[in-house]
Amino acid sequence: MAKTYFPNVSNVPFVGTKELKSGLGYHYYNADEVVGGKKMRDWLKFSVAYWHTFGQELNDIFGDGTAIRPWHGLTGMDLAKARVEASFEFFQKMGVDYYCFHDRDVAPEGLTLHETNKNLDEITDMFVDYQKQTGMKVLWNTANMFTNPRFVSGAASSPFAEVFAYAAAQVKHGLDTAKKVGAENYVFWGGREGYESLLNTDMKREQEHLAKFFHMAADYAKEIGYEGQLLLEPKPKEPMMHQYDFDAATTIAFMKTYGLEGTYKLNLEGNHANLAGHTYQHEIRTAREAGLLGSLDANQGDKLIGWDIDEFPSDLYEATLAMYEVVENGGLGNGGLNFDAKPRRSSFTVEDMFYGHIVGMDTFAAGLKVALRLKEDRVFEGFVADRYASFDSGIGADVESGKATFETLNDYIIDKPQSELLAATKSGRIEELKDTLNHYIIDTLK
Amino acid sequence: MAKTYFPNVSNVPFVGTKELKSGLGYHYYNADEVVGGKKMRDWLKFSVAYWHTFGQELNDIFGDGTAIRPWHGLTGMDLAKARVEASFEFFQKMGVDYYCFHDRDVAPEGLTLHETNKNLDEITDMFVDYQKQTGMKVLWNTANMFTNPRFVSGAASSPFAEVFAYAAAQVKHGLDTAKKVGAENYVFWGGREGYESLLNTDMKREQEHLAKFFHMAADYAKEIGYEGQLLLEPKPKEPMMHQYDFDAATTIAFMKTYGLEGTYKLNLEGNHANLAGHTYQHEIRTAREAGLLGSLDANQGDKLIGWDIDEFPSDLYEATLAMYEVVENGGLGNGGLNFDAKPRRSSFTVEDMFYGHIVGMDTFAAGLKVALRLKEDRVFEGFVADRYASFDSGIGADVESGKATFETLNDYIIDKPQSELLAATKSGRIEELKDTLNHYIIDTLK
Amino acid sequence: MAKTYFPNVSNVPFVGTKELKSGLGYHYYNADEVVGGKKMRDWLKFSVAYWHTFGQELNDIFGDGTAIRPWHGLTGMDLAKARVEASFEFFQKMGVDYYCFHDRDVAPEGLTLHETNKNLDEITDMFVDYQKQTGMKVLWNTANMFTNPRFVSGAASSPFAEVFAYAAAQVKHGLDTAKKVGAENYVFWGGREGYESLLNTDMKREQEHLAKFFHMAADYAKEIGYEGQLLLEPKPKEPMMHQYDFDAATTIAFMKTYGLEGTYKLNLEGNHANLAGHTYQHEIRTAREAGLLGSLDANQGDKLIGWDIDEFPSDLYEATLAMYEVVENGGLGNGGLNFDAKPRRSSFTVEDMFYGHIVGMDTFAAGLKVALRLKEDRVFEGFVADRYASFDSGIGADVESGKATFETLNDYIIDKPQSELLAATKSGRIEELKDTLNHYIIDTLK
Amino acid sequence: MAKTYFPNVSNVPFVGTKELKSGLGYHYYNADEVVGGKKMRDWLKFSVAYWHTFGQELNDIFGDGTAIRPWHGLTGMDLAKARVEASFEFFQKMGVDYYCFHDRDVAPEGLTLHETNKNLDEITDMFVDYQKQTGMKVLWNTANMFTNPRFVSGAASSPFAEVFAYAAAQVKHGLDTAKKVGAENYVFWGGREGYESLLNTDMKREQEHLAKFFHMAADYAKEIGYEGQLLLEPKPKEPMMHQYDFDAATTIAFMKTYGLEGTYKLNLEGNHANLAGHTYQHEIRTAREAGLLGSLDANQGDKLIGWDIDEFPSDLYEATLAMYEVVENGGLGNGGLNFDAKPRRSSFTVEDMFYGHIVGMDTFAAGLKVALRLKEDRVFEGFVADRYASFDSGIGADVESGKATFETLNDYIIDKPQSELLAATKSGRIEELKDTLNHYIIDTLK
Ligand SMILES: [Co+2]
Ligand SMILES: [Co+2]
Ligand SMILES: [Co+2]
Ligand SMILES: [Co+2]
Ligand SMILES: [Co+2]
Ligand SMILES: [Co+2]
Ligand SMILES: [Co+2]
Ligand SMILES: [Co+2]
Repeated sequence: MAKTYFPNVSNVPFVGTKELKSGLGYHYYNADEVVGGKKMRDWLKFSVAYWHTFGQELNDIFGDGTAIRPWHGLTGMDLAKARVEASFEFFQKMGVDYYCFHDRDVAPEGLTLHETNKNLDEITDMFVDYQKQTGMKVLWNTANMFTNPRFVSGAASSPFAEVFAYAAAQVKHGLDTAKKVGAENYVFWGGREGYESLLNTDMKREQEHLAKFFHMAADYAKEIGYEGQLLLEPKPKEPMMHQYDFDAATTIAFMKTYGLEGTYKLNLEGNHANLAGHTYQHEIRTAREAGLLGSLDANQGDKLIGWDIDEFPSDLYEATLAMYEVVENGGLGNGGLNFDAKPRRSSFTVEDMFYGHIVGMDTFAAGLKVALRLKEDRVFEGFVADRYASFDSGIGADVESGKATFETLNDYIIDKPQSELLAATKSGRIEELKDTLNHYIIDTLK
Repeated sequence: MAKTYFPNVSNVPFVGTKELKSGLGYHYYNADEVVGGKKMRDWLKFSVAYWHTFGQELNDIFGDGTAIRPWHGLTGMDLAKARVEASFEFFQKMGVDYYCFHDRDVAPEGLTLHETNKNLDEITDMFVDYQKQTGMKVLWNTANMFTNPRFVSGAASSPFAEVFAYAAAQVKHGLDTAKKVGAENYVFWGGREGYESLLNTDMKREQEHLAKFFHMAADYAKEIGYEGQLLLEPKPKEPMMHQYDFDAATTIAFMKTYGLEGTYKLNLEGNHANLAGHTYQHEIRTAREAGLLGSLDANQGDKLIGWDIDEFPSDLYEATLAMYEVVENGGLGNGGLNFDAKPRRSSFTVEDMFYGHIVGMDTFAAGLKVALRLKEDRVFEGFVADRYASFDSGIGADVESGKATFETLNDYIIDKPQSELLAATKSGRIEELKDTLNHYIIDTLK
Repeated sequence: MAKTYFPNVSNVPFVGTKELKSGLGYHYYNADEVVGGKKMRDWLKFSVAYWHTFGQELNDIFGDGTAIRPWHGLTGMDLAKARVEASFEFFQKMGVDYYCFHDRDVAPEGLTLHETNKNLDEITDMFVDYQKQTGMKVLWNTANMFTNPRFVSGAASSPFAEVFAYAAAQVKHGLDTAKKVGAENYVFWGGREGYESLLNTDMKREQEHLAKFFHMAADYAKEIGYEGQLLLEPKPKEPMMHQYDFDAATTIAFMKTYGLEGTYKLNLEGNHANLAGHTYQHEIRTAREAGLLGSLDANQGDKLIGWDIDEFPSDLYEATLAMYEVVENGGLGNGGLNFDAKPRRSSFTVEDMFYGHIVGMDTFAAGLKVALRLKEDRVFEGFVADRYASFDSGIGADVESGKATFETLNDYIIDKPQSELLAATKSGRIEELKDTLNHYIIDTLK
Repeated sequence: MAKTYFPNVSNVPFVGTKELKSGLGYHYYNADEVVGGKKMRDWLKFSVAYWHTFGQELNDIFGDGTAIRPWHGLTGMDLAKARVEASFEFFQKMGVDYYCFHDRDVAPEGLTLHETNKNLDEITDMFVDYQKQTGMKVLWNTANMFTNPRFVSGAASSPFAEVFAYAAAQVKHGLDTAKKVGAENYVFWGGREGYESLLNTDMKREQEHLAKFFHMAADYAKEIGYEGQLLLEPKPKEPMMHQYDFDAATTIAFMKTYGLEGTYKLNLEGNHANLAGHTYQHEIRTAREAGLLGSLDANQGDKLIGWDIDEFPSDLYEATLAMYEVVENGGLGNGGLNFDAKPRRSSFTVEDMFYGHIVGMDTFAAGLKVALRLKEDRVFEGFVADRYASFDSGIGADVESGKATFETLNDYIIDKPQSELLAATKSGRIEELKDTLNHYIIDTLK
């Protein structure tokens, strides 16, 4: 790391809440501060997304890339190596402990997969070295099986067997790489695993292929002794009109149908939740309650926009409620918080790369603190416990224990007047709870 | 049926396609015409929704009812009985074979469930009589567990045990009724089984209660020897912010999680599909491929509108593609096509009741004819068979048989040049297929 | 006010930020505190919506009303009078200065408009008395021209001339009432002024009628010397499939087409903004920059929900940015902040009526404080001034002054290399600005 | 045109409706057939979009281009020239009369605008030659002011004066080009004329610049004697979070605010209409009734998808209702039907280019025939005339003539009983009209 890529930015320190304007310091994220019994860095396990931060040119479908980056001008493996150097400088300056990458982000393709793998190996050798020097870890790696035209109609769900075979070989090498770099998880986002139109699609056959693929992957991971957690990442649509891993519940149905729920968990993204018509908290809770919460892609969408914008998270409500589920889950285990996020196309400078991560890390660190405080005071838990108390004894307990039947319940209720039923319902007091939430956010973060 | 409720409308005849303007005759629905080896009436099993056709006042959230109905002026059981008479006159004039009803549509509530059940029984006695006289059948009945304030926070997923008990007793009587009237199915639409806010909701506990409820229902049905098919009807939201049976896939996840998939199937509605971000065909195919296609609520939404409008179906594309899945399924078994549909609030006359059903029945009869023709000519099937042919032999067949592994696939593909991969992909030809679909619709229906 | 309707609730005091849990006290709203040169009560002019607070039964399209209210049991004019008494008790206890009402909320209809007007007059006599006693004022009144079936296809845009005449007479009396009660504004929300389908609609003729109606209203107001501000309230859809006052811009187009922009301004609602695909701030800014910002309906929607939920505002971001525009506008003049909001259907107690208004008032009071602080520090203004500085001199100034033409600009730029153009663009720094916004919210509200 | 680019495709003939499967022939488009008093080619004025058909690589935000094109391998001006040759071969084979292009589609950029213009001129010289040889015409040309990074924050609404100047010079040359190639219209689609966030945007200043820009353009067009129609094309969002020309009504508001409605008209696109929450028909009718209907971008969206997919039109309902408005307008004058449409990414062959246009042209030709038949039979017109008949005489006529006032209408209605009002309303009969529409489509197209 002789060369400096970001000479104008120093290590980002924890500065606390004195300064009002955003700057190159953390207001809330204080890595080694212990909250709720753990260091913040261990609760949060922040990860930089290699593709967005070092590969993203900030193009969109109507425009070319606007990004200004210190590695511009280089090509091929020279570019790939410069990005590695720059990335570790960036990680160090941000004080982040993890990163995530796709295979195709970090090294260029060759004419055959064989050559492609060689390019990748050369770069992951550098990763291993830099990891040793710096203590950085890989939260997860994954395979890009959506950019190249060969994947036009899917990878593991492609109608074309050659493409399936290619995808299998690509993920085989991905799992080898995961083992090599010590990735704590391996992720599958089904970029083009879905359909453009049902008119030309055998959905069942595609889903069966997909399931076989996931089984082969789990078998191979076992065979090579890779012990990271395997994760599926749901998204409802885009680029495909429909994607098979639509949302957490759909992916759970798929996992249960094909016997994958013992092997795989879920990686959940905020923007994808919104595109499916859900809040981020909903998706996380769905996974948590199913025992399948794996890891989080910490970003935010714009609910008035119908495509994936992968914005750096800045919404204190969403971060608080996401972290509330994480705290309830006792943390994320192997998982962490990966910023699958990019600066806006109009935020094209190197400084914007830093500011994006700062707002993201501070927002989630803030959310963690608020969530812990809410839990400590049993704000929602206490309310919820009271609300369902009628199931703790009597006829309610009989329902939960399995003792009650339609007949016993009928006997119990058949002659009760309507007024008693009404009296048994209680207000959900949502307005009051939302007001309280505001107070907790302000008071905790002041 | 001495009294006539619709004196200005005669039996609706099949008139064929001569007349261009809509009128009180069918252009496509010819009940006893045999197509694809079965009578149209047996393929389609059209059902009138009692609530929309005889209970709907055409109010909306901003306005009072506009409907003009011959039973206006009556109240209580007199009203209930007049509606029975009118409904059978309507069924006969439409030439439809089935109807569907909620318990609370057909008879008023009493002070206790006991009294309420008595009212219901008096009406279902009439149903049984009229069914004998006319040959009409019940496609399904169901329980309204969402209108009364006692269900404000759910029925089987209510936080209040008294409400759960009430719901259990209500469905107990519903299943007794199903047996009595010979309903071919019994439906659960989870009107308020969902949440308003996660802040005050124990989602897991609610879903566990819901699952217990469905098991109790199945047990009770078995106990009384009711042999109709039990069905769950998905809807993503409205009235609740989130409903547990969000869509087909979510409901399948729920069924698999709680061991319900052997006992229950799905009743799918077009408008609900759209509200979940899906096409109607997508929902039907999802259920069909899971072996869980039960019955259809044949209506249409407006994809630019964010709430349930329950419009009578008139879109020939949607009806064709829905019937395509039905034909592929070999029909609907116990299921049928229920018009969970109402005239627009501005279509408030008695004639509009007839026109709504006519456009709905003709649209689905037309869709059936087009679907059968498409199948006969193997238009999509042939294309799809070709598209996936690489999985019929060689490496593709090895994938499907379970012979292939990541290692064998890696060996096969590792040195293939990129050009061979590209050559293996073929165009999906969607534009051509959509053009062909237009031709089949026009040519079949001319 | 001898009888007490809310015996368990005392006057809601300002308590400051000590207590974390929401209670019957204000954390931020301190009516007589001077901020930004004015009392909070004068900046905010909070108004209670009579219909939601005293008329709303908390029914929805799938369910009956759940509300528990102290006036239940009464009917007709007795009910109407009890509500007046209760409303003034509520206003006093909340410490709010304004209220808003529809004609049909406050008094029942008679057989003719003549009788209906008499009922209304009896109630507004009470209003005038109570206003004198309490100092309460009317922010605005309006006409309900959407609930009654006569308005099924519109009021002023109805295809039926009798209905147009009725609407005219109804608003005539509404303007008389506005004068009588001293309403500072008179509002038109076009409940059913739109279409269900273009197939049966003469949109131009309907819009011309609507325009004539607004001109007649303005003429009549002038004639009787009513000097309140006339306001149009946009909403994109619901109940109609399309409403003519879709959003601020559409309404401005309509006003300009028919010469109404000198006479009318806009009343903007947060939930309506979202339903049109806009943020609330966008709608307010659009009106503000057009010089047409009249008044605000302070509520919030759920951007994942496709219908109007009229939720009490609790989102500090939205309230801050809405108030930012209000501060920029130098206040709202005749306008104020009306809570067009209702408790959730599951928040059915009398206490929830208070909590809903408390969270709403505190959220907007908080937003006001943050907005003033942001303005004081020129946080966004300063950034914006710099960003557009190239238009303050040179070629940019020539553009603004009208001196520049395509030819002079062509001469200026034709030979500049691409690099100079790129150098002229600057980062929009959105991530940094959002981070700063978080800090201002927390620091101001602590 | 010595070289053949599409050797496997001959001229696409009119073949009529005998063949059911789509093929390289027209079922409905018969260019010289006279319908409704004009040749089909004159009603429809079909235009090929140069960018999608000859520039589109079928990339998306998650993937590289998949298109296979005969000009692949060429670069720079060689590529540009090959595309010209190929395009005219394509136009001839399709039998289409018009094309549309952006400046940057047809020729590469140089280092300065000066050089860029030279490249463009060299290509437009070829256009002029080929047009003479073939009779092809330009429906419109336009400027691409959104792809290059200089336009990151807008062109005429850029915060940076240099960029404004560049845009001005670019459009100056665009208008010169329009005159040179005889373009019947010149279009402005405001690709990045909007905002990413209001936090950093002076919306008013941007809109004022935009308006000045349009005035300068109109002035320059006049100065050089360019007599084509100037057109604005609305789109609500994408790529920007908000675009100033949101929809037809918003653009009309803008035009009226800045005095542009005498000079500009609207170019309306189906997919853009849907993204704004409207039907295509709605947007066209809005423009038509304002006297501002200019031209159409004939494509379709997917209403369940939140981004612009620019699909070739295949929906007979949408095409019929769009053409209904065109027929009502007496045709499009200078305007025509431009296919702003691309094959799906999975439709990557040369044949798909032809099939896409065939389904588009046949769908709109079919729509024209149905629309003419509907008009001929006065199906909707007759119904609408009856529906509004109460405004043709009596009190209704007084309203329209301006004779009525609130007082006269009050006198007229004040004592009428409610029953008379209800009797004055009539059913809108939407179900019946939709059924009739189905019959007209089938019967006309058989
Ligand atoms: Co994303
Ligand atoms: Co992600
Ligand atoms: Co239904
Ligand atoms: Co429905
Ligand atoms: Co509202
Ligand atoms: Co409002
Ligand atoms: Co488009
Ligand atoms: Co376009």
